[in-house]
Amino acid sequence: MKHKITLKKIAKEFGVSISTVSKALKNSHEISSEVKERIQAFAKYYHYKPNSLALNLRNQKTKTIGVIIPEIVHHFFTKVITGIEKLANEKGYNVMICLSNESYEKEVLNLEMLANGVVDGIIVSVAKETEEKDDYRHFNELINNGIPLVMFDRVVDQINCNKVIADDKGGAFLATEQLIKNGCSHIALLTTPDYVTVGNERKEGYLKALYENNIPANQDLVVKVNDKISIEEQLSVLFEGGIIPDGIFAVNEIYAATVMKVARNFGYNVPEDIEVIGFTDGLISEFTTPSLTTVAQHGRTMGQKALELLLDEIDSQDTHYQYKTSLIQTDLKIRNSTKKVEFHN
Amino acid sequence: MKHKITLKKIAKEFGVSISTVSKALKNSHEISSEVKERIQAFAKYYHYKPNSLALNLRNQKTKTIGVIIPEIVHHFFTKVITGIEKLANEKGYNVMICLSNESYEKEVLNLEMLANGVVDGIIVSVAKETEEKDDYRHFNELINNGIPLVMFDRVVDQINCNKVIADDKGGAFLATEQLIKNGCSHIALLTTPDYVTVGNERKEGYLKALYENNIPANQDLVVKVNDKISIEEQLSVLFEGGIIPDGIFAVNEIYAATVMKVARNFGYNVPEDIEVIGFTDGLISEFTTPSLTTVAQHGRTMGQKALELLLDEIDSQDTHYQYKTSLIQTDLKIRNSTKKVEFHN
Repeated sequence: MKHKITLKKIAKEFGVSISTVSKALKNSHEISSEVKERIQAFAKYYHYKPNSLALNLRNQKTKTIGVIIPEIVHHFFTKVITGIEKLANEKGYNVMICLSNESYEKEVLNLEMLANGVVDGIIVSVAKETEEKDDYRHFNELINNGIPLVMFDRVVDQINCNKVIADDKGGAFLATEQLIKNGCSHIALLTTPDYVTVGNERKEGYLKALYENNIPANQDLVVKVNDKISIEEQLSVLFEGGIIPDGIFAVNEIYAATVMKVARNFGYNVPEDIEVIGFTDGLISEFTTPSLTTVAQHGRTMGQKALELLLDEIDSQDTHYQYKTSLIQTDLKIRNSTKKVEFHN
Repeated sequence: MKHKITLKKIAKEFGVSISTVSKALKNSHEISSEVKERIQAFAKYYHYKPNSLALNLRNQKTKTIGVIIPEIVHHFFTKVITGIEKLANEKGYNVMICLSNESYEKEVLNLEMLANGVVDGIIVSVAKETEEKDDYRHFNELINNGIPLVMFDRVVDQINCNKVIADDKGGAFLATEQLIKNGCSHIALLTTPDYVTVGNERKEGYLKALYENNIPANQDLVVKVNDKISIEEQLSVLFEGGIIPDGIFAVNEIYAATVMKVARNFGYNVPEDIEVIGFTDGLISEFTTPSLTTVAQHGRTMGQKALELLLDEIDSQDTHYQYKTSLIQTDLKIRNSTKKVEFHN
């Protein structure tokens, strides 16, 4: 038999984008007649089965939910899935999980596959590459096809759907203010590249806490970590001269655990010389020495809330359904990487 | 519209097992005529769509692979999935992941859902509850329906399919022998309940190393950990009197990291007083103090091998296809929870 033809293969055959193929098959006026005819003929020859055929299956509920996460070796996402699974079990839904591996193309293909009559609705945290490309047409297409979508954690402002976000800014503010209360005045920030929205939110919370406490922000104390090269080496710059930080706020657990190792190698003690707070819902924090004070993200709660909103939309008969954004509070889990300070008002 | 009816709901309605419903719908002679008639009438009334209808879709390749893992908050399983994903991307396959949450019933339902024309083949690590019930008919049914199946890590001897296993016994032997070489003579084993096959394999490796080195096994030094209650409390018995171990081999990372904390609370230093080795491919080991010496499981390699075997079967035209069992070697990753001993032969 012939191999199944996909949008991806057609795009490759013609050297165009998946989106162009999709538009050509829908006879969009954006695509030239010549290209449309060639792509349509090719698709027909290979019996390409467009989504619209599958859409007929739409009214048949599958009692299955699709979830697309950027990566699986990440405790936060696995906690979110635990939350989704728990509520899904209670409500009699199955859950199918796909990974985008932070890739735009895989995200598009996963959406296409899941939307193809397999699931009743989809929960997504957006891939870094998609955020970097700033291209969200695949989500709009999904919504236009009437498939309920909930975004969580990494959400997109310009997409109109239900959303669940952690209070990233508030959590970062809490963490930074705790360091200030404990007496730190040179507080470093370990964060992600600028295009990662949650990293930016956390940076804003950090800057707000500095500002409200009249501490000038110092660019030399901000490290934007590139995950593709050695984190230890990138963090070493903090201890190689200039202003040595007395407090460090890291936007995730790996950066926080790694900076404690690096600080120790440079002869600094945590929390005596340097206090460290991470941002996470992870496992590592409990087992580091000292154990790590963190902003708790409540991933399970986020997962449950995301599914709640999705089922709400699936079950809704309302033609003027109003989308909601649910903000999940974060709070500080004090462990031993910060000092125990008694406050007297 | 009526809600979609499932095997599970029919089973609940009649107060019988899913397997009985399945047999009744297939008109099995094992089920009484009266029960069969009632179940069949009920299923017909609710438009139950049995797998056999979906089976007609079988010849249409989906280019999608299903993976069922027992739990997701477990670094080993996420590493295996990373391995599966990597090869799947190279080969142009999508991957759908479902969780059994260690539940027999969820495993059956996931298999049913995935086999329903959604995937070309399935990779499974068996749920603990299934191992405990010792009931594997759902896997046989899958194989009888011609759907390729690969089992990994937690595999079932009596199921005839491709399998990928880590050399659990060999790894445990290595770890225990390392402790013996380092001078330990009272070596504790922290393991799982008996019905978990990999725990048993690792126990065998531990016993073999003791035996070959003429060290008598001591039941007081074996702790079978129940994950449902406090691990710390269960491990405390090792330090509350009697023979205090000088070496500890733990069959996973959490037990190993936890026992280091408990030992420290009792005033023992690792590795000076007690040496510890874990079994894992996890993240925690790198960040504990001291960092944890472990048997490396190579989860990514296992995932890649599992998919390789699955695609091999999917692509095979051979009517006498021979199943294989692939043994993935384990090795020792020496970190700081064991002493650095120089050996002279």
